[in-house]
Amino acid sequence: MSNISIRDLEDRVTGIFATAGIRAETARAMARVIVAGERDNCKSHGIYRIEGCLRVLKAGKVVPDAIPRLRDSTGPILEIDAGGGFACPAFEDARATLIDRTRQHGLAALVIRDCLHFSALWYEVEDLAREGLASLSMCPSYSSVAPSGGTLPLLGTNPFAFAYPRTGPHPYVFDFATSVAARGEIELHHRAGKPIPEGWAVDANGTPTTDPTEALAGAMLPFGGHKGSAISTMIELMAGAMLGEFMSKEAYDFMGGTSLLPRHGALILAFDPARFSANTGRDPIAEGERLFAAIGDQGARLPSQRRFTARAESEAQGIALTEAELAQLARLESLGLAAID
Amino acid sequence: MSNISIRDLEDRVTGIFATAGIRAETARAMARVIVAGERDNCKSHGIYRIEGCLRVLKAGKVVPDAIPRLRDSTGPILEIDAGGGFACPAFEDARATLIDRTRQHGLAALVIRDCLHFSALWYEVEDLAREGLASLSMCPSYSSVAPSGGTLPLLGTNPFAFAYPRTGPHPYVFDFATSVAARGEIELHHRAGKPIPEGWAVDANGTPTTDPTEALAGAMLPFGGHKGSAISTMIELMAGAMLGEFMSKEAYDFMGGTSLLPRHGALILAFDPARFSANTGRDPIAEGERLFAAIGDQGARLPSQRRFTARAESEAQGIALTEAELAQLARLESLGLAAID
Repeated sequence: MSNISIRDLEDRVTGIFATAGIRAETARAMARVIVAGERDNCKSHGIYRIEGCLRVLKAGKVVPDAIPRLRDSTGPILEIDAGGGFACPAFEDARATLIDRTRQHGLAALVIRDCLHFSALWYEVEDLAREGLASLSMCPSYSSVAPSGGTLPLLGTNPFAFAYPRTGPHPYVFDFATSVAARGEIELHHRAGKPIPEGWAVDANGTPTTDPTEALAGAMLPFGGHKGSAISTMIELMAGAMLGEFMSKEAYDFMGGTSLLPRHGALILAFDPARFSANTGRDPIAEGERLFAAIGDQGARLPSQRRFTARAESEAQGIALTEAELAQLARLESLGLAAID
Repeated sequence: MSNISIRDLEDRVTGIFATAGIRAETARAMARVIVAGERDNCKSHGIYRIEGCLRVLKAGKVVPDAIPRLRDSTGPILEIDAGGGFACPAFEDARATLIDRTRQHGLAALVIRDCLHFSALWYEVEDLAREGLASLSMCPSYSSVAPSGGTLPLLGTNPFAFAYPRTGPHPYVFDFATSVAARGEIELHHRAGKPIPEGWAVDANGTPTTDPTEALAGAMLPFGGHKGSAISTMIELMAGAMLGEFMSKEAYDFMGGTSLLPRHGALILAFDPARFSANTGRDPIAEGERLFAAIGDQGARLPSQRRFTARAESEAQGIALTEAELAQLARLESLGLAAID
């Protein structure tokens, strides 16, 4: 294990992407979200993601120099076209306008079009919560999850994230795949040669399996049975069909499989609690604190607490990386796209 | 079993409420949603609910002659104050303006303040979907569910509903409690003297139980573990704290227990798919149909299909009620509030 500062790791990851031919602003935006994941010990969305980004670039399925184009509007719907590029710079370019529109109207929607969204959604909603806004974020991915009652991949792992502002150092944040497990978790088990828990997936014949290779060739299962399946379907509809963007099946077909990052749209809904509660004289943030205190009083944890603990450690001591991770970073720096099979 | 027409049952239920002193428009609105539940064979939200409405009236915890007051706004947030009355007439009074605002801005929020929301949320979202709009609906209830990792009632059963317009006779609709089971389901088991399945609840000591009486005195569990618990918490925040309205704990304290309907706010978010997809040239409704067809092709069912099948039967042959149900209806008609303990 060696520790590296957040800033140094961001610079190195930015360098890898820029050297590979990605526009400088995009490379920096990607490095920020990837290093934020690594900083929070959120390994499935940390530096592990670098290779996936380079792989899709090498395959020619992402536009490395795309410049996001914001469609101007004074209304509560804001659209930004990522132009077939990565989603991170599109969010960065739109966030100030989204915050303005949300404060102006009380709620607003940000539609990100035609993007590759590889990062954790908590990054976006946590950012908005630090501006005093509540928000929901969702996007399709690619067909890898069977709907409840079915056996074939159709839905994506379709992440769903929410954040609500708090008085303390961190907002209330959750972000989860609507499959039992994130695909990245199964990939990490696959890489480590470990079986996956029962209930995560079925094989290509629709039979339950604990083999990560068979799971990746079969279908994952939605969390929470028919209820989780319904939420995943809602995400296909709201962040796919409704936006006129790809659903997970089309993202799969476009990429020709699940080995490359999916391309689709994303939807963020933002709310100004101050506006929603204005006519009541109640403080929506203080009310939230009462709920969080009551959850803590019975010994239950809030989501993201482990992430915030890891972040404090990384901020104080740098991010701890294994020798293998450092060697892979160095390899990507020296070989660039040639390091990718 | 005897069959009664939808219209006749609506008239009889309206009569029961009006005789009990509820404002005529409110009585009719309540009867419409209750009979819609019964018509769809959604027993936990059917005529079974009449007594609960009368009980809270007898306890003096609902305002029977409240007239909902719409706060006028040209923006995308619409508020209607139910004035401590039942929620149904507030939704009826606000729906046309909500539809207008959603078409005008592309999305809109309806806040229902200070209401008793006893009906199934699908009634509202299905109604909006028939106008071509997608929508989400949610509200707190009262503390009866332990957060993931906890053992004490804090969260409500917090229902979550979504609908998306379809080309056929019925929209895509789901509506579920974010607890493993709806409280009404446990009450029906209690009434029938049947044990509840494992995993639904813990007793007052936090120990898993299959006894519905102990479950009602203990805490229900959220669906889907920590993910369902997070969604339930989101509903407390978005439809409680954010609106400046009661969360489930306050609703519980206000009502002094769980024997009366909870009083709180409700939030409906509506979206115009035509507006969200306008710049893409894609048809958001046709895209949704492709997803529904693919779900059906693998033998999986869409949510609400059983409800729509029951509805077709009720529309053709009338609503089938047992002799006990008919006797109870007659008893409520003749005794009114005196029939309630």
